[in-house]
Amino acid sequence: MITRFPGYTPTRSGAVVHDNLVFTVAVAPDPVSPSMYEQSVKALARLDENLAKCGTDKSKILSAIVYIADIKRKGEMNRAWDEWVDMKNPPMRACLGVELEPPHIVEIVVTAAK
Amino acid sequence: MITRFPGYTPTRSGAVVHDNLVFTVAVAPDPVSPSMYEQSVKALARLDENLAKCGTDKSKILSAIVYIADIKRKGEMNRAWDEWVDMKNPPMRACLGVELEPPHIVEIVVTAAK
Amino acid sequence: MITRFPGYTPTRSGAVVHDNLVFTVAVAPDPVSPSMYEQSVKALARLDENLAKCGTDKSKILSAIVYIADIKRKGEMNRAWDEWVDMKNPPMRACLGVELEPPHIVEIVVTAAK
Repeated sequence: MITRFPGYTPTRSGAVVHDNLVFTVAVAPDPVSPSMYEQSVKALARLDENLAKCGTDKSKILSAIVYIADIKRKGEMNRAWDEWVDMKNPPMRACLGVELEPPHIVEIVVTAAK
Repeated sequence: MITRFPGYTPTRSGAVVHDNLVFTVAVAPDPVSPSMYEQSVKALARLDENLAKCGTDKSKILSAIVYIADIKRKGEMNRAWDEWVDMKNPPMRACLGVELEPPHIVEIVVTAAK
Repeated sequence: MITRFPGYTPTRSGAVVHDNLVFTVAVAPDPVSPSMYEQSVKALARLDENLAKCGTDKSKILSAIVYIADIKRKGEMNRAWDEWVDMKNPPMRACLGVELEPPHIVEIVVTAAK
């Protein structure tokens, strides 16, 4: 069984649940700060909301891919991540510098267990 | 049980099925158009073919990561996506600007249910 | 049940096992060579180690996303991949040019069956 939760447009879901796996994506919601740290804090908070809708939480994240618009600012994202992460249950994580659609400078894709 | 379907070279699969999960990737097949819209249309059609080989279809896509070579042309890809997507079953989706090997300017990686 | 294996920092896991799925990431360990071929060889060897810790191996990789810092050097990474891959069981693979944190120029994210 597949359950889908609304995303930013009707042609995308913000989260999808299949069996005991959850797929979700988050960016910082409006108003979008230019700060990498603040966008990361807000994207991670949005991720918490998405996971809660799916009946799970950050302690069950399996894999996180963090896309940022400038790899030189990875330290700012890391600060938000380290404050947020469940230290007893850290996900596998990769952080990559890519082009994102402005004003977004951080986007996070997660696979979690339910 | 794992089933593998041929990809662009013998050292890669185009699609892999494991239990009830399908992993597949698509780019536009030859001849490769320079248009982001046309490459997107053709990559999505190729995705349909790959999913069909695996015994599933776009209504069961869980997650789609769309890589494009120029984030400023995301609108053209979106147009192809919006025409193609199953509106009743939209996947989680992220779209990222990355470097792709020319002449490709769009590549799509999907996880689907079977 | 979720099992986590240590990663590069305490806030990330290097590998996570959930049911019969394994999520892992690898870069070349220190000392980090400037050669794309050598970094790829070493990242792939590290991937083997991670998979072994999780009770699986490269014959069971479902999906591999290879991130490299310069798409023009994809041929060097391909050489390492082609020497390493289990030809009877090739994974679905995508290769993308992104920004990575120096001195790393290759990073590989894998989903495997257990």
